[in-house]
Amino acid sequence: MEINSKIQIIPLGGCGEVGMNMTLLNVYGQYFLIDCGTTFPDQNQIGVKVIYPSVKYLEENDIKIEAWLITHGHEDHIGGIAHFYKKFPAPIFTTAFTAKLIEYKMMDSGIDNYPLTIWNYFEPTLFSNIKVTPFPVNHSIADASGLLIETSLFRIIHTGDFRIDEHPPEKITTIESLKRVCEGKNISLLMSDSTNSFAPNTDRSERDIFDGMTKYFENTKGALIVATFSSHIWRVNTVIELCKKHNRKIFFFGKSLERNISFSLKLNLTNIPEDLFQNFENINAFPRNEICILCTGTQGEAFSGLHRIAYNNIPSFKATYEDTVIVSARVIPGNERPIDSVETQFLKIGTTFIHSKLDKEIHASGHGYSEDLKKCISTVKPKYFMPIHGSYKLLKRHLELATETNVPIENCILAENGDAVTLSEDGIEIKETVLNGRDYSLQGGIFPANSRLYKDRVDLGLCGFVCAHFNLRKNTFDLLEIPYVTSVGVNIDATSYQQSLKKLFERILFDQATRANFGVEHFRNEIRIQFRHQLEKIIGYKTVVLINFQFL
Amino acid sequence: MEINSKIQIIPLGGCGEVGMNMTLLNVYGQYFLIDCGTTFPDQNQIGVKVIYPSVKYLEENDIKIEAWLITHGHEDHIGGIAHFYKKFPAPIFTTAFTAKLIEYKMMDSGIDNYPLTIWNYFEPTLFSNIKVTPFPVNHSIADASGLLIETSLFRIIHTGDFRIDEHPPEKITTIESLKRVCEGKNISLLMSDSTNSFAPNTDRSERDIFDGMTKYFENTKGALIVATFSSHIWRVNTVIELCKKHNRKIFFFGKSLERNISFSLKLNLTNIPEDLFQNFENINAFPRNEICILCTGTQGEAFSGLHRIAYNNIPSFKATYEDTVIVSARVIPGNERPIDSVETQFLKIGTTFIHSKLDKEIHASGHGYSEDLKKCISTVKPKYFMPIHGSYKLLKRHLELATETNVPIENCILAENGDAVTLSEDGIEIKETVLNGRDYSLQGGIFPANSRLYKDRVDLGLCGFVCAHFNLRKNTFDLLEIPYVTSVGVNIDATSYQQSLKKLFERILFDQATRANFGVEHFRNEIRIQFRHQLEKIIGYKTVVLINFQFL
Repeated sequence: MEINSKIQIIPLGGCGEVGMNMTLLNVYGQYFLIDCGTTFPDQNQIGVKVIYPSVKYLEENDIKIEAWLITHGHEDHIGGIAHFYKKFPAPIFTTAFTAKLIEYKMMDSGIDNYPLTIWNYFEPTLFSNIKVTPFPVNHSIADASGLLIETSLFRIIHTGDFRIDEHPPEKITTIESLKRVCEGKNISLLMSDSTNSFAPNTDRSERDIFDGMTKYFENTKGALIVATFSSHIWRVNTVIELCKKHNRKIFFFGKSLERNISFSLKLNLTNIPEDLFQNFENINAFPRNEICILCTGTQGEAFSGLHRIAYNNIPSFKATYEDTVIVSARVIPGNERPIDSVETQFLKIGTTFIHSKLDKEIHASGHGYSEDLKKCISTVKPKYFMPIHGSYKLLKRHLELATETNVPIENCILAENGDAVTLSEDGIEIKETVLNGRDYSLQGGIFPANSRLYKDRVDLGLCGFVCAHFNLRKNTFDLLEIPYVTSVGVNIDATSYQQSLKKLFERILFDQATRANFGVEHFRNEIRIQFRHQLEKIIGYKTVVLINFQFL
Repeated sequence: MEINSKIQIIPLGGCGEVGMNMTLLNVYGQYFLIDCGTTFPDQNQIGVKVIYPSVKYLEENDIKIEAWLITHGHEDHIGGIAHFYKKFPAPIFTTAFTAKLIEYKMMDSGIDNYPLTIWNYFEPTLFSNIKVTPFPVNHSIADASGLLIETSLFRIIHTGDFRIDEHPPEKITTIESLKRVCEGKNISLLMSDSTNSFAPNTDRSERDIFDGMTKYFENTKGALIVATFSSHIWRVNTVIELCKKHNRKIFFFGKSLERNISFSLKLNLTNIPEDLFQNFENINAFPRNEICILCTGTQGEAFSGLHRIAYNNIPSFKATYEDTVIVSARVIPGNERPIDSVETQFLKIGTTFIHSKLDKEIHASGHGYSEDLKKCISTVKPKYFMPIHGSYKLLKRHLELATETNVPIENCILAENGDAVTLSEDGIEIKETVLNGRDYSLQGGIFPANSRLYKDRVDLGLCGFVCAHFNLRKNTFDLLEIPYVTSVGVNIDATSYQQSLKKLFERILFDQATRANFGVEHFRNEIRIQFRHQLEKIIGYKTVVLINFQFL
C-alpha cells in the first residue's frame, strides 16, 4: 500500500536554531511528538520570557497525537510539556528522572492527572504502527535517552542529546548502547544531535572533572561554593565524591537543587553518606574549611543561590576572601553580563572566583564533539542521515561529518523547522514545508510571535502612547466637549494638543462629509492616522495613538 | 596653597564597565573632559538604542568645561560628542582623523560651528593650569592618541586605548612613543586601558594579518568579500595591499566606509593606486576572480554592506558558491545571533564564510594583552597607577599586572564611575563618590535610566495598558455615563469591564465620602489602584492602568 510505505518526520523546533527541540513523526497516519522544548529570547524580543515552537500546523489540521516520546529533562526538551500537554493530552513516555522533572512542571501548571509511562532502557514499547526502544546515552543530565523507532519498513535512530564519555557516570557509553540497540538491524535513518558539530576531537570525561576540581578542594582555606545546573546529577555526584575525599560537609542551597537531589536519591542515582549531608541552616556550626556549598545560579540568575551569596542576601552565610567559588557550567550566550555582575560582587569581597571559561578542567560539555559525532555515525551505519538540534551552520557542519564517515551526500538531508521529510523506499526528501514558527510567553499568556498583542506591546515599549477621547452626541458627530488627551511614555504635554485635535476632528469631518465611504470606524481611523502623523512631525517618531469615540 | 596642590580625576563612564569612556579632570578648579563615549544596551534594556554616561554631577554643580580632550574616534570615545557638546560647548582638541569622524557626528546633529583644534603629536597644548601633549599609540583606528597631562606638580599619562604593535602601521610603537614623551619626567600617575588585561602574552601584529589573509586571496576562485570596521584604516590598508599583490580590484561598499576612506586619502593615511579602486556600480565589468569587495557589517547589522550581500539585496552583485567572505573583526557580545543569521545566508548560497573566531590569523585586537600592559607600566614607571576602560574584573586584573610590574599595591587605585580620585603630594585616594549613572537614547530623546518615561515604556512593553474614561458632571462626582474602557496589548475584552468599573467607582466614592483626605487626585488614584488589582486577579499580572476624569 502506497500510503503505508512512507513515513514523515517534521521538525517543529530545534532545526535551524538552537533550543526548543520538537519533532513530529507521522507513521501511516499515527502521529507522535518527540520532545517539546523551549528556548530563550534574544535582545530584540521585548518582554519575552521564553519561546515555544508553534504547533499551528497540528491545530489547523486537527492532528491527534498518539504519544509524547521524551528523551530527557533539559528545558530545551521538556520546557513546553505543561503547555503542550494541555493542547495534546496524549500519554507520555520517558525515563524515571525525566518523569520527576515533568511531574514538577505539571504540578506548577495545575495538571495533576496525566498518563505517564516510565520506560526501561532497551525494552520496546509497542504502538499500533511502531515500536519504540529507548536506550541510554551519555549526557549532562541523569536518565538521558536516545530512541530506536521501528516500523514495518524503517528503523530510525534518534540520538536525543548525547556525548560519548569513555568513563561514563551512566555505566555504559553511548557507543556500547548504540551497538546493542542497532545490532543486526539495518538502520534506515540516523537523526543526530548537532550542538557541538564544530568542536574538534572530543571533550574530557565526567571522571576528569574530579581531578580538575581537586586543586580547589586541596587549596581553599575557607568554604567552597560550587555552582552547577541542578539537573546535572553526575556533576553533583562528582562534587559529593570530592567532599567525601576532602572531608567537607555538603550543603545544598537552592530549591531546584534540593528537589532534584531528592529525586536522585529516590532513584538511586546519587548516594550521600548520612553525615556528609548537612542542612544549610546549620552551616555556622562547621569550620569554614569543612564547608562545601552546592548551589544553582551558573547563569547569574537573580534569586539563585550563587546570586544571593554574592550579594550577601542570606543571614546564615557570608562569603569571605578565604573562600573559593567554582562555576562548573558553560555560559549560555546572552548571560555574559549577569554572570559578570555576580563575579564582580565576589571580587569585591575578595572571594576567589573560578569559571570554566578560564579553567577548562572543571567542566565538560554534554554534547558530542565532532569525533563523537563521527563515531556515532560509523557505529549506527545508517542508510540516510539527518542532523537535528542546531542552527543551520551546525546542521551543515554535521552533514559534512556524515559524508566524511561514508554516508553518501545524496543520502543526507538538511531539514529546517517545518520541512516535511519523507522517508520511503525510494529515498529521503523534503516534499513540502508546513506551518511553523514561534510562540512567545509574555505577561498574560502565550501568543504567536506575529500576534497583534505582541506587536502592540513592542510598539508601546518603544514609543509609548497617546489616547484621545471624544465625547459625541448620540447618533451624530457633534463634539460635546473639547477632546480629552492623555499620554504615557511620551515626552509631551498631552493637554496642549486638545485644541489642535478639535480642529483636526472638524476638518476631517468636513472632508468625510463629501465622501462615499464614510463611517464611524473610517472617521476614527482617519483621525488616528492624521493625529499620529502630526505628532510624528513634532516628536520625531510614530507613537501609539488610540482614538476613542464615546456617544453620550 | 592647599587648593592648588590637589587634582581630581573622576571617571564618569568606562570604569567598572566596558564602553562609554569619559573622565572628568579637575585641575585647580579648571575642568576638562577626556573622551565622551557611548555603550550598547543589553537584553533587559527595552527600546534603548545607545547608552550615554550621565553628566548630572556636572549639571547640578554648574561645572563649566574648559576643553574636550578626545583620544580617538571609536564610538566608546566619541559616540556622545554631539549630545555632550550641546551641554558643554567647549573647544575640542583631537587628532585629524578623529576630527573628521567628529565632524560627521556634529553635521548629523545640525551643529555646524564648533571650535576644534587638530593637534600634532608630541606638541603640547597649553591651558592656564595644565599642558597636554598628545602622543601616538597603536590601536585599531587611525590617529589614536594617548595624553601626557602636566600640571605644576603632577605628570599624568592617560594611554587612551592602545596595544603594542612591533611592526605598527602607525610607524612608531606605543613604547617608543611613551619613551619619548616620558623621557626625563617622573610620571606621577598612569591611567591605562584595561580592556584585555586577562589576555595572556600579546597579539599578532597588524602586519601578520597580511599573511593571515593571503591564503584566501590565493585560493578563492570567485569574488572576495572582506568585512571590517569602517574606521579601521590600517585593516583597510592591509586589504588594499593584498589586492595589489593578488591582482584584484577593490570595491568599497557601504557609506561609512566610503566616507572614512575619503578622509583617509585626504590625510594621506591611505594610498590606493588609481586603477585598483573601482566603483561598485561597475563591478560586473570585471571577472569574479579580480573582485574584492570591502564592506561593513561585521556585527551582522541590518542594512550593512555584508547583510545586504548575504540577503541578496543588491541588484549589481550576487554572491556565489565560488566566493569567500572574510569577517576580520571580533564579535561584540550580544551580536552572536545577527552574525549567525548572516553566516547562515551565505552558507545557504554556498559561499565560504571565514570568521576570525575560527581563523585567528585574520584579525588582531586593538587593545594590549597583559604583556603589553606590563610593558607600558614598566616603560612609564609611574608613582601611582589607575586602571581605566574596563569592568571591575578587568580593572582588578590590571592592578595585579601593575603590582607584578613593581608598582606598590598601596600606590594603585581601583576607581569605578563616580569615584573622585584625588591626587596630591600626600598620595592618591578616593575622597568621595559623585553622582553618576546612565542616560538612555530612546525614541524621542535621551532620558535618565531611572526616568519616569523609561519606566513607563518598560511597563507598557511588558504589560500593555487599560484606559478608563469617566465623564463626570462639572464640580461633582456624578457619573454621566458608564465608564468607557479601552486597552492595547492586554488580552481582555475591555468593554466587559465597564459595569464592574462603574460599581467600583460608586463604592470608592461612598468610602471616600467618610474620609478626611478626600480629593480628585486621591479618588482617581484609588480607582486606579483597585481596578488594577481587580484586573491582576483575572489576567495574572499588573498592567498599566490610566484613569481619566473629564468634567463636562
